[in-house]
Amino acid sequence: MASVQWTRLIRFVPTGASAPIYGEPIGSDAELADIGAAAAAGKLTARVIDVGADGPLSPAAKVTEQVATVGTLLGPLPVEAVPDVKCIGLNYRKHILEAGRSLPPFPSLFIKPATSIADYGEAVPIPKCAQEGEADYEGELCVVIGQDVRDVSVEDALKYVAGYTAGDDVSSRKWQRLKERAGGVPQWCFSKGFDKFAPLGPVIVASALIPDPSKLDLKTVVNGEVRQETPVADLVFDVPTIISFLSQGTTLRRGTVIMSGTPGGVGCAGPEEKWRPLKDGDNVEVYVSQIGTLRHSIRYE
Amino acid sequence: MASVQWTRLIRFVPTGASAPIYGEPIGSDAELADIGAAAAAGKLTARVIDVGADGPLSPAAKVTEQVATVGTLLGPLPVEAVPDVKCIGLNYRKHILEAGRSLPPFPSLFIKPATSIADYGEAVPIPKCAQEGEADYEGELCVVIGQDVRDVSVEDALKYVAGYTAGDDVSSRKWQRLKERAGGVPQWCFSKGFDKFAPLGPVIVASALIPDPSKLDLKTVVNGEVRQETPVADLVFDVPTIISFLSQGTTLRRGTVIMSGTPGGVGCAGPEEKWRPLKDGDNVEVYVSQIGTLRHSIRYE
Repeated sequence: MASVQWTRLIRFVPTGASAPIYGEPIGSDAELADIGAAAAAGKLTARVIDVGADGPLSPAAKVTEQVATVGTLLGPLPVEAVPDVKCIGLNYRKHILEAGRSLPPFPSLFIKPATSIADYGEAVPIPKCAQEGEADYEGELCVVIGQDVRDVSVEDALKYVAGYTAGDDVSSRKWQRLKERAGGVPQWCFSKGFDKFAPLGPVIVASALIPDPSKLDLKTVVNGEVRQETPVADLVFDVPTIISFLSQGTTLRRGTVIMSGTPGGVGCAGPEEKWRPLKDGDNVEVYVSQIGTLRHSIRYE
Repeated sequence: MASVQWTRLIRFVPTGASAPIYGEPIGSDAELADIGAAAAAGKLTARVIDVGADGPLSPAAKVTEQVATVGTLLGPLPVEAVPDVKCIGLNYRKHILEAGRSLPPFPSLFIKPATSIADYGEAVPIPKCAQEGEADYEGELCVVIGQDVRDVSVEDALKYVAGYTAGDDVSSRKWQRLKERAGGVPQWCFSKGFDKFAPLGPVIVASALIPDPSKLDLKTVVNGEVRQETPVADLVFDVPTIISFLSQGTTLRRGTVIMSGTPGGVGCAGPEEKWRPLKDGDNVEVYVSQIGTLRHSIRYE
């Protein structure tokens, strides 16, 4: 059973310090609804979490009485704390049916390496090889595994979740789909696995506060314009089903991040002349109810 | 520049001990041609390698004067030393053309999680969900990255290689290809990512001893029958090209294992009635010249 002592987990550099630490942000649910904005205003404080030897997702990670003011808010997990990012393709019903596809029989898995993790507020670098009008966003609800698990049933799956956060499955559509690049097969791992192509955050909300993730809502905003807006209840494979499926024959280790899929409204769908790729300097926000808003920008290398 | 002090790296439990250590096996090239057989005969000794804080692939890992006898030979790298296993699909020319496909424009990447690593001599567990006559082997030359690298040129790519080993990209063909399971897209990450589906070993031979990996030969033997036999020179994308491509926009971390692709002769190709899947108790050997023979068995869970 994944049981954490904190209710919310953030990682940050305190004011006047230089090294990142973990903390549990202080405030009412309403005050913590937009943790990034509170941090940017210099108004976010947190009880320092002593993570010990086993990291912030361990049941031993302890919330102390020491209070720190957040200077720079980072993502909740560094690359070192994440074994890998397991992602589900095509998983929102409306989006799949709109595209004229049939619903998949099982979840489709692809893996982003841990090096794809980026912090809250970071500029996601678009590498030179992926700058031909193909950079895209995919706002997603993310699940953080709190304890190693294999062959878990759908019924027991949520017991292994430490908490939930928001994420952007940044994607290069031409590497993913274009025959001249991908060669007729979906190049998911390459097109979505570039460094920092998985910004996460700003906070992991413990599963104790979110007993049923299907009640959450997801929204993605680019430069102030709403692009994706869907209830998580529209998932073809819900969170317990995804966890159970991915754990068949495969150990999901503590710190594994599962990106649960993205709904319709991505920038580069349909014929290429209608694509609206992310440009240098664009700002992306992924909002998940009860979690808050992940923000990051785009920087062409 | 990846520079290691050892010429060959093995990991093993010494006779009379219980904890695994690293070592450089002792003997002439001829005596070390089949390290697994030598270990099984109780005749393999090694100079103990002091890996220090940064692990066996660090330039600081030091070959000591202390000699140990190999009790149980393991794989050269444990799960913890491998960030992930990056694999190239369709990459042997003859195999692709035989299947009536055209050569791909770029390497096709998929990722196996580090939990897929298995030791030399292990029984690879076939999970219950993948036992319908679908378990298959893919003998491969594997590259081990010795130093973090991003955006490297083809010319400089081999400088970041610590060494080479043999591997089996164990695969569940029904999850990979069957429309009822995979839903019309190749499910590479799920079908090939089960626990211990990437046995590696028995040894990493330092790149100083293998200046040109395209001169190696690859052979896979199942229950004594040769199934795959191809020179590595038949690769569509050679090792430097693979490394350079995978490093574009993506940091390849020390310990990353790259499986370079498999040639024709897998058990489950063509129409299903002609498949020859791996059965419970089968024995697989992957031989790479200058490296030796990886052995593992198959165990249905």
